[in-house]
Amino acid sequence: MATTFIHGGTVVSATGKGAADVLVDGERIVALLEPGSTVLGADLATTADTVIDATGKYVIPGGIDAHTHMSMPFGGTQASDTFETGTRAAAWGGTTTIIDFAVQKFGERLQDSLATWHSMADGECAIDYSFHQIVGDVNADSLAAMAGLQDEGITSFKLFMAYPGVFYSDDAQIVRAMQVSAETGLLTMMHAENGPAIDVLAEQLVAAGKTDPYYHGIARAWQLEEEATHRAIMLGNLTGAPLYIVHVSAKQAVGQLAAARDAGQNVYGETCPQYLYLSLEDQLGAPGFEGAKWVCSTPLRSKHDHHQDEVWQALRTNDLQLVSTDHCPFCMKGQKDMGIGDFTKIPNGIGSVEHRMDLLYQGVVDGKISLERWVEITATTPARMFGLYGRKGVIAPGADADIVIYDPAGHTSIGMGKTHHMNMDYSAWEGYEIDGAVDTVLSRGSVVVADRDYVGTKGHGKFVRRELSQYLI
Amino acid sequence: MATTFIHGGTVVSATGKGAADVLVDGERIVALLEPGSTVLGADLATTADTVIDATGKYVIPGGIDAHTHMSMPFGGTQASDTFETGTRAAAWGGTTTIIDFAVQKFGERLQDSLATWHSMADGECAIDYSFHQIVGDVNADSLAAMAGLQDEGITSFKLFMAYPGVFYSDDAQIVRAMQVSAETGLLTMMHAENGPAIDVLAEQLVAAGKTDPYYHGIARAWQLEEEATHRAIMLGNLTGAPLYIVHVSAKQAVGQLAAARDAGQNVYGETCPQYLYLSLEDQLGAPGFEGAKWVCSTPLRSKHDHHQDEVWQALRTNDLQLVSTDHCPFCMKGQKDMGIGDFTKIPNGIGSVEHRMDLLYQGVVDGKISLERWVEITATTPARMFGLYGRKGVIAPGADADIVIYDPAGHTSIGMGKTHHMNMDYSAWEGYEIDGAVDTVLSRGSVVVADRDYVGTKGHGKFVRRELSQYLI
Amino acid sequence: MATTFIHGGTVVSATGKGAADVLVDGERIVALLEPGSTVLGADLATTADTVIDATGKYVIPGGIDAHTHMSMPFGGTQASDTFETGTRAAAWGGTTTIIDFAVQKFGERLQDSLATWHSMADGECAIDYSFHQIVGDVNADSLAAMAGLQDEGITSFKLFMAYPGVFYSDDAQIVRAMQVSAETGLLTMMHAENGPAIDVLAEQLVAAGKTDPYYHGIARAWQLEEEATHRAIMLGNLTGAPLYIVHVSAKQAVGQLAAARDAGQNVYGETCPQYLYLSLEDQLGAPGFEGAKWVCSTPLRSKHDHHQDEVWQALRTNDLQLVSTDHCPFCMKGQKDMGIGDFTKIPNGIGSVEHRMDLLYQGVVDGKISLERWVEITATTPARMFGLYGRKGVIAPGADADIVIYDPAGHTSIGMGKTHHMNMDYSAWEGYEIDGAVDTVLSRGSVVVADRDYVGTKGHGKFVRRELSQYLI
Amino acid sequence: MATTFIHGGTVVSATGKGAADVLVDGERIVALLEPGSTVLGADLATTADTVIDATGKYVIPGGIDAHTHMSMPFGGTQASDTFETGTRAAAWGGTTTIIDFAVQKFGERLQDSLATWHSMADGECAIDYSFHQIVGDVNADSLAAMAGLQDEGITSFKLFMAYPGVFYSDDAQIVRAMQVSAETGLLTMMHAENGPAIDVLAEQLVAAGKTDPYYHGIARAWQLEEEATHRAIMLGNLTGAPLYIVHVSAKQAVGQLAAARDAGQNVYGETCPQYLYLSLEDQLGAPGFEGAKWVCSTPLRSKHDHHQDEVWQALRTNDLQLVSTDHCPFCMKGQKDMGIGDFTKIPNGIGSVEHRMDLLYQGVVDGKISLERWVEITATTPARMFGLYGRKGVIAPGADADIVIYDPAGHTSIGMGKTHHMNMDYSAWEGYEIDGAVDTVLSRGSVVVADRDYVGTKGHGKFVRRELSQYLI
Repeated sequence: MATTFIHGGTVVSATGKGAADVLVDGERIVALLEPGSTVLGADLATTADTVIDATGKYVIPGGIDAHTHMSMPFGGTQASDTFETGTRAAAWGGTTTIIDFAVQKFGERLQDSLATWHSMADGECAIDYSFHQIVGDVNADSLAAMAGLQDEGITSFKLFMAYPGVFYSDDAQIVRAMQVSAETGLLTMMHAENGPAIDVLAEQLVAAGKTDPYYHGIARAWQLEEEATHRAIMLGNLTGAPLYIVHVSAKQAVGQLAAARDAGQNVYGETCPQYLYLSLEDQLGAPGFEGAKWVCSTPLRSKHDHHQDEVWQALRTNDLQLVSTDHCPFCMKGQKDMGIGDFTKIPNGIGSVEHRMDLLYQGVVDGKISLERWVEITATTPARMFGLYGRKGVIAPGADADIVIYDPAGHTSIGMGKTHHMNMDYSAWEGYEIDGAVDTVLSRGSVVVADRDYVGTKGHGKFVRRELSQYLI
Repeated sequence: MATTFIHGGTVVSATGKGAADVLVDGERIVALLEPGSTVLGADLATTADTVIDATGKYVIPGGIDAHTHMSMPFGGTQASDTFETGTRAAAWGGTTTIIDFAVQKFGERLQDSLATWHSMADGECAIDYSFHQIVGDVNADSLAAMAGLQDEGITSFKLFMAYPGVFYSDDAQIVRAMQVSAETGLLTMMHAENGPAIDVLAEQLVAAGKTDPYYHGIARAWQLEEEATHRAIMLGNLTGAPLYIVHVSAKQAVGQLAAARDAGQNVYGETCPQYLYLSLEDQLGAPGFEGAKWVCSTPLRSKHDHHQDEVWQALRTNDLQLVSTDHCPFCMKGQKDMGIGDFTKIPNGIGSVEHRMDLLYQGVVDGKISLERWVEITATTPARMFGLYGRKGVIAPGADADIVIYDPAGHTSIGMGKTHHMNMDYSAWEGYEIDGAVDTVLSRGSVVVADRDYVGTKGHGKFVRRELSQYLI
Repeated sequence: MATTFIHGGTVVSATGKGAADVLVDGERIVALLEPGSTVLGADLATTADTVIDATGKYVIPGGIDAHTHMSMPFGGTQASDTFETGTRAAAWGGTTTIIDFAVQKFGERLQDSLATWHSMADGECAIDYSFHQIVGDVNADSLAAMAGLQDEGITSFKLFMAYPGVFYSDDAQIVRAMQVSAETGLLTMMHAENGPAIDVLAEQLVAAGKTDPYYHGIARAWQLEEEATHRAIMLGNLTGAPLYIVHVSAKQAVGQLAAARDAGQNVYGETCPQYLYLSLEDQLGAPGFEGAKWVCSTPLRSKHDHHQDEVWQALRTNDLQLVSTDHCPFCMKGQKDMGIGDFTKIPNGIGSVEHRMDLLYQGVVDGKISLERWVEITATTPARMFGLYGRKGVIAPGADADIVIYDPAGHTSIGMGKTHHMNMDYSAWEGYEIDGAVDTVLSRGSVVVADRDYVGTKGHGKFVRRELSQYLI
Repeated sequence: MATTFIHGGTVVSATGKGAADVLVDGERIVALLEPGSTVLGADLATTADTVIDATGKYVIPGGIDAHTHMSMPFGGTQASDTFETGTRAAAWGGTTTIIDFAVQKFGERLQDSLATWHSMADGECAIDYSFHQIVGDVNADSLAAMAGLQDEGITSFKLFMAYPGVFYSDDAQIVRAMQVSAETGLLTMMHAENGPAIDVLAEQLVAAGKTDPYYHGIARAWQLEEEATHRAIMLGNLTGAPLYIVHVSAKQAVGQLAAARDAGQNVYGETCPQYLYLSLEDQLGAPGFEGAKWVCSTPLRSKHDHHQDEVWQALRTNDLQLVSTDHCPFCMKGQKDMGIGDFTKIPNGIGSVEHRMDLLYQGVVDGKISLERWVEITATTPARMFGLYGRKGVIAPGADADIVIYDPAGHTSIGMGKTHHMNMDYSAWEGYEIDGAVDTVLSRGSVVVADRDYVGTKGHGKFVRRELSQYLI
């Protein structure tokens, strides 16, 4: 097998940073070395098959985006990124693993949905991937099937408290699924919004002629995220299920998580870059139909209520544990425009898989989080949360050589025709400037991004089986 | 320099564990290696100067006890462990660094107190050590001197809200000292008990003939720890000082810390093994004068109010960040017995420096905390909190080779004549049984404990200069 | 019209007590007089048609029981007290007004249900009565009908988050009904238990052979009351509806109410005597099928978790505003026994309408609440909460002469063959001893209880139209 | 004795309102009558000595201002209102009782200070008055004297956590005084600001040339009110003393009170009109030295942090129980101007005793509080809190005829040359317009304000002995 030697860089982990050289043999890291040590590896800079000079740069574990939706079917269309285009864009952005969702539709067998998703991803991906299982039809059959997920390397499943008639589970279904979660250790992931209440408000708004994208945010009021978050927590408390709330945006939902965690309950939460930077007024409320670019659920929150500040703070205080993208892109033309004149018809989703590492690094530059916390919330904690740690999420001997060399002296301009390689006809992040850049990316030892250019190959990425979450204690 | 090769073990960090071999060259770790890799180091098991087989054992960063009081003067006597005896006992127990306290007495120059402590420790220690600075007389002169502490490698200082007339600072003094803390980044450590109120209660109890050790715990009521904790937090909020509460024992004080942290304030807390295992009724309330063995401040709390459970929980939820010992031993004969007939005369302190790693490992066995959290709260977080990380607190290339090989199949019986090597005539932990054992300990590359036996040398331990806390963001 | 003069007593109001004589003319109070005043009324003790000597006794506004279910249909049977028997028992116990519930069943027109209840009560009652409206089928028709309730003198309606398929409203229905509440000022009353989740647990318990009454309490776990309470509060926050939670039993639900009230939301709660005195273990867990006597929903809570203490405390702190009975009696023979072998078949309900005033007076004797608070939570606040104040709930000129003379030197033994006049074959309060007694009761000027004996007449009681709640600000 | 008949008005109590006529005989109310009743009093409108037509007006219990400082010595001067001028102004404004403070200075005997205050007030007052006792020197002698206060008709005492060297009590003194409070039932009143910390900040501000009145508000930061409030609560929790926090201004202090009350502790709080209407920026920050007009402690809070909204809300939710003025006026010329160039030299205090009833009635007009709550927080609760209820604070037979007839159709313009009758050379309320007016005021049966004009006499007002607080349960 070929060896790669990365030297001169600063290795950053979730707990600290230090100068260290990294030796890769084939797909795995085989050694971390003190620079300049004469005992071992003194000649690696000449003998290794590939030598990468990381001087002045950070050497970090490849990003893990634990929440993406490639080719996700939604509202009669599907997310515009395939596993091919989406994972390639992820690689450009320093993400070396995604965890996507196999979607069981109502009336479908759980096993069939997983098989479908395997077939969609197999041979297409630039980087490694895994799946969570969406359980869109909790019934006796699917409950039985869930017990077999761990054998498939799937250790987490997602329920929806929103979207009645589509993915929605009622509280009886949630209790039954959470009982499986408590028994097996599978992590319950929850889309926590009160869908039945939202649908009443949305229907009333449309009936009142309030059809612009802005009203998407009004219908999906913070009270309905806070409420569903609390309900999920209490059902978790009742059943003993470990719980993970996806895409937290409202500060009040953060408050519910913080309270439950202070009380010792096993409950976790992610947020997404859009909730850290974008707002109801500035984006969803953009003139005309422009706001449709940022229609996602949970929605962007008001800039007047300090949601962004409190979500950043929760990342610092570990009341939120990690940041995913909920990457679910749709083009404006032919997709988002289905909702002109009726915001409820706009496909829900924003594309960010390429920009997560950069957008959060900017948080380091801006003093929002520490460098170590950046690594933790983008790679180490996602790995631990979802049973990948050891192989992913850490620079250590024996780990997969999923490595990003990040240049703090670099600069990244985000937007169409700039860093944008996602299959979208717009960028939700047009104009964002990042004081840093993804320089080089290795996926299982292969360089997939070199000199800020994609050099990987379709099909290199493999399905990764996951262990149970390391956060069960 | 001599090399040491530790192979076959499971390296445990704050975030995870994995098989890895460790190569030490002289005083530092120079490489972590994948076991069995053929690229590098395949022959180390034969070529290294020293080879340690860690098969079946955990390889962890040496423990850091961030709160000890060797030779501490208190109530007319002094703690019975010297730097020689205390650090040797620490080494036996898998602790490779202590942070002790230089004690500025009222009326003394700050600089002089630090010089005194340096002279007491220099050449005496079995393991590395550093100092926090106790500021027992906050005045214009000491405030000015505090600004120079960082140049001395001292990045934290401690104030007392208790002990009026001895170490006590009033709120005006605390504000002034915290202002220095906010300006310089020096971490403010606080003994948070309302001393003036305690002294009223203690005086009244003694006057009422309630002189047994048990009443030490009654006088130092939880309300007075909760109150002082809250006050310290608010003064920290006012001044912007980073704050660290020492020896938290009351669940209500934990609640104050949790609330402040949820609100985003930079405030931290430690607890000690005694608050996790021992109680007001069972120990302080032991018959006759026996309870004096466990007279320490803050005191042991009632077993009827779930304090122990909530302190364990706070360690899990990171509402408390680490565990120190507050090691401050006094012998029953000639020291503790000064308080027969008047509990206020009993020297305050318990000796635990030797047992911290074991007692907390038992928490792993008992399912209270994870294996990774054990490493985090005993080594990694102390290092980060007090500016030692990189040199201490982590198994990584470039770090000091402070390494403990811990045997989960071993067994440790604690008590006099068993693991007890502290200079005390009793053990506060008599009868505790641990399902694990410290097997081997390295301090800066030197084996100081081998086969569960101390083989180190007095004076090996050096003073370690510290950086600012890594927890300032 | 005939006059009645009550002299020598201590008039107790919600804010204080004092010596005062009361003059009644016909149905109303016409004067409060300083005893012994020579200006006015000096000869009333000889000239009034009826003279009542209340020396040494309390003169209080007649009790208002804001939550009763006479002849309530439930599980194929109906509550065993009719309006005749139930209101007569109420009078015995010092209650002079009940607010019962008109029950709209699924599929029924709201107006028809109200008419049915009017016909059931008209001409039957010993004391005055009013209705809340149960909305068991929220749809376009009933929502429209609700807007007309105020014209009928009905200013509150109740929804159920429990009992799917019977009275249950889903969150969409709740939002729509609460919108009417916010617009009209009608008070939303909520049975706050998560019915769908309860039904899963109950089904599983029965399937597992856990069929005893005790498991009724297990299935209806506190988490499911807390959750529903929080959800109701958040939907109230969303819509602006004033909210009143019925029969609060779990301390955690109390906590949700307290938090919402501290935040300024218009939300209120009642508890019932059973939650102040009885427990899961001692009553529901009684041997054999005995526990069925105390099957009610929300259920009795565990005595090990301080629920009773915290509910008493909430009455003191006004986190709960009043005490009703949720009087809904069923006989053991022929009714409760339908659930032998399956606790889900036991009709839910306890009979207490006769004992509420006594049981809460015992709280005064026991130091749980003040004398004034007793009057407030049993009469004054119910009147204010439900739009009766001025006519009911106060001893003042112009008010209906609904007056109770309560003897603190009396004694009441509760149980079958003692004070029990409800139509039940058992007493849920067998053996309770009260250090006080209802001496005399007037309903609109008519003496209905004299010398502790019922002397009223069927049909004396009239329907009372209610104003909007006085708690809307 | 002469009789007075007030007819046609609406009597408002803390719980409701209704049409009722009031008959006064001499100093006391002897009857409340239903208007138009033919049984009793039908001819009073012709036979009473004095007949007052209150048609269209509110008849309410006279206001009780529980916190005034007539002739208060402070900073080398004394409050500009004497008992004569101050109580006269109070009468103009519808207040018929004040509770002032007898001030024990450091080194003075408690009994002597009370005698001094009696001699200052005796024969001077237009309305009734009582005293709280300020304990400015907690020592063995004063602690013993406190036990005798109840015999003097004094049932509350006040301590200061601010003003070191003047009134300040340290925590040891507070504990000892609170122990007396717990034993005797005397209510502990607390000025809750951390004085030692404030003095550091103030000294630093002045040293930095920040000498304007605005900096008075900066030095007395909200953290230092919140902290002291929490500390007082915890010491109350420790000792069991009933506790009352004076002049609460910071929302965070309100939060501490709310939390303690939710937990069942006997703790209460007042606010003052200035904290409901005025702000740090608009008043304290007025140009030049103008801000001195509003220098009081606790200080006005920032308008940017919602303090006013949350204090109003706390009045609604009963997290604050009543409103006093903390009336302590100083003239700008010769008094406030002592602090030109050094805000710490500005005498602390605002004059509002004349305007409290009006300013809070405006809260009714503005929808902040209900009409009943207005009566409750200005009269009924002060009476209950401080042991006056029955004689004061209620319109009931046997009560003192302290009655205000308030005209909701009237209008009051506040300011110099308008309603201002306090002995001040400015008005802190210049320009405030009230949609209502004090029409007529009776003090113990004597009309002291008629047709909005003062017609009372100096010396009419008598010292009122007080019972223990009715809020002890």
